[in-house]
Amino acid sequence: MSDFDLDLGIKRDGGLTHVLDKGLGPRAWEDVLETSGEYIDIVKLGWGTAWVTGNLRRKLDVLRGKPVVIGGTFFEVVYARDRLDDYKRWLGSLGIRHVEISDGTVEIPRERKLELIADFARDFTVLSEVGSKDSEVVFAPYEWVEWITEELAAGAWKVITESRESGTAGIFRPSGEMRTGLVDEIAHSIDVHDLIWEAPTKSSQAWFVKHFGPAVNLGNIPPDEVIPLETLRLGLRGDTLKEVLLGDAEPEPAA
Amino acid sequence: MSDFDLDLGIKRDGGLTHVLDKGLGPRAWEDVLETSGEYIDIVKLGWGTAWVTGNLRRKLDVLRGKPVVIGGTFFEVVYARDRLDDYKRWLGSLGIRHVEISDGTVEIPRERKLELIADFARDFTVLSEVGSKDSEVVFAPYEWVEWITEELAAGAWKVITESRESGTAGIFRPSGEMRTGLVDEIAHSIDVHDLIWEAPTKSSQAWFVKHFGPAVNLGNIPPDEVIPLETLRLGLRGDTLKEVLLGDAEPEPAA
Amino acid sequence: MSDFDLDLGIKRDGGLTHVLDKGLGPRAWEDVLETSGEYIDIVKLGWGTAWVTGNLRRKLDVLRGKPVVIGGTFFEVVYARDRLDDYKRWLGSLGIRHVEISDGTVEIPRERKLELIADFARDFTVLSEVGSKDSEVVFAPYEWVEWITEELAAGAWKVITESRESGTAGIFRPSGEMRTGLVDEIAHSIDVHDLIWEAPTKSSQAWFVKHFGPAVNLGNIPPDEVIPLETLRLGLRGDTLKEVLLGDAEPEPAA
Repeated sequence: MSDFDLDLGIKRDGGLTHVLDKGLGPRAWEDVLETSGEYIDIVKLGWGTAWVTGNLRRKLDVLRGKPVVIGGTFFEVVYARDRLDDYKRWLGSLGIRHVEISDGTVEIPRERKLELIADFARDFTVLSEVGSKDSEVVFAPYEWVEWITEELAAGAWKVITESRESGTAGIFRPSGEMRTGLVDEIAHSIDVHDLIWEAPTKSSQAWFVKHFGPAVNLGNIPPDEVIPLETLRLGLRGDTLKEVLLGDAEPEPAA
Repeated sequence: MSDFDLDLGIKRDGGLTHVLDKGLGPRAWEDVLETSGEYIDIVKLGWGTAWVTGNLRRKLDVLRGKPVVIGGTFFEVVYARDRLDDYKRWLGSLGIRHVEISDGTVEIPRERKLELIADFARDFTVLSEVGSKDSEVVFAPYEWVEWITEELAAGAWKVITESRESGTAGIFRPSGEMRTGLVDEIAHSIDVHDLIWEAPTKSSQAWFVKHFGPAVNLGNIPPDEVIPLETLRLGLRGDTLKEVLLGDAEPEPAA
Repeated sequence: MSDFDLDLGIKRDGGLTHVLDKGLGPRAWEDVLETSGEYIDIVKLGWGTAWVTGNLRRKLDVLRGKPVVIGGTFFEVVYARDRLDDYKRWLGSLGIRHVEISDGTVEIPRERKLELIADFARDFTVLSEVGSKDSEVVFAPYEWVEWITEELAAGAWKVITESRESGTAGIFRPSGEMRTGLVDEIAHSIDVHDLIWEAPTKSSQAWFVKHFGPAVNLGNIPPDEVIPLETLRLGLRGDTLKEVLLGDAEPEPAA
């Protein structure tokens, strides 16, 4: 970074950063990768955006080297349209090796969702997602735990907890407040390494870093928030400086 | 888009997407046009931003091929400063063939506004705008209808209904809520093909798509929301998937 | 800007625009500088973002010619970690000649802060910052005035009044409303040319322009809001058109 390296005596161990792209172009991605590529673990092309993106192959060329996944809502469209085999073929032709399987908008019977996870897991790395996109749908914590457990058993690499791009559904209330009790109940029963918490807002990211420590897996991070999130993880921003860097508070145990 | 084309059996017929630019540079516009240019029908350089933009000609070179219009507030400045002829000459020198005529901030007598629309319509494609930028100014639906009718008769190609960049005035309440009753009264009397509804927020875009169908004309779309809007129109996002793609609801008739 | 110059009979005299960068890449900065570089007086690389930015030197190369400063929170980290000499050496190796000194998160005794300002002022242009990042911490106006006066006397070039990136602390209430009484009391006692008011939101920028006139020094401006701010200063946007351009209101005296 510089001829003289400023050593702050800090470093980060682990913690996935899962980025939500809603249509950035190739030049913008070159910028993001140059300045923060080392902090990005997976790039999600949100919902059906990939399908409408012009010159998608050039964009994917820029992203080559990073795992890319298409948003779960697009999977639900493909499911509803009965195009599952075509979808696999299309992903193959694009060189995409990850897939997200969700049922946040389209109803998919649970048994069928688990079969689909198992089926796709033979050829792809599967991220499955739990939680509704409808902010008025509220599931009980025991249901979240049961579904996450089943989806991991069926072959999902990670399970994502829904929040939407806006942080207003799933593990969030419509007001944008987090359902912290729900988060704790999930983390009490599931290994947090198997989870990716959607956390699109700074306040939720800071909460997760303070609650589970800097190595927590976070999802739906906007591309221009990757560097700010990295500073939250390292305690280089006011929101987490005292807790992470000065050790004023012990990170709470994750489970 | 890919060697193997994933056919979803959907397509879109019509519906203008009018984009609001507030100062993007030429590299960013290259990205936007490459990824979503086919969905952009007109680019508005908001209020007086064009006048202060450095190297404006290079930016316009990148946008060449798309209709470009300068925001109505700048027209109002030019009117207040009595520089109308210079304004035409300046637009000519920039190669701009569209003009927006509004009275959202500066008072212009109605007769004079109609004369100006007719006058500019001889040399330019005119977009006129109805509604105040002052969130406390509320006009009755019959006034909106009368003014829109008059401005179309005077020569406006389309009439834009005001909302501001923030969605807090005109057809929106200061709270950001839409005045849906007003919208319905306007659409009851005016052919919706003659209107462009300013809809800067996702929730308002989804509402218009569900209410008038995917081919509705929408304005003040931020450049990075063109791809997300396209997915809303096609039913490839959770907000409109059921209504547009699964036909769970009939699009309500526009008039 | 064009072969034919549209003269509006307006111009701007003075007023610093201090930009807050939270991780933009070099291509994006080329765009920002090309379109609005002439309106940017100083670029702050927010909190610890510079330290985690990949290929920081290339980004600084693009910014060469503009004063660059690293955010005060990073200074506080360096202070807490006892790396002040290394920090100076690092800034030197990066070619950075400005420094921000704050105590918004880490407690620094006032005497020590004043010593540090005096010490850094020997080698750097110092911007000091007053106000807490904790939205629940409220200082009395006389404390703000006393501290700003002391920090200017100690050698600060300008004193920045805290607001955070979000406009929710310091001279703002947690709700985002401005503490206008506090601002007036500060401006009553301090020469406004010695101050930079953090004003990240459009409504606060418009308020400052209307209250102190177009030449007010404003800080924490997002890069994509530089052009919009310039139009606010010139009266080319609805929010300030009447006051600045039509002279409907006298700018209130600054002190």
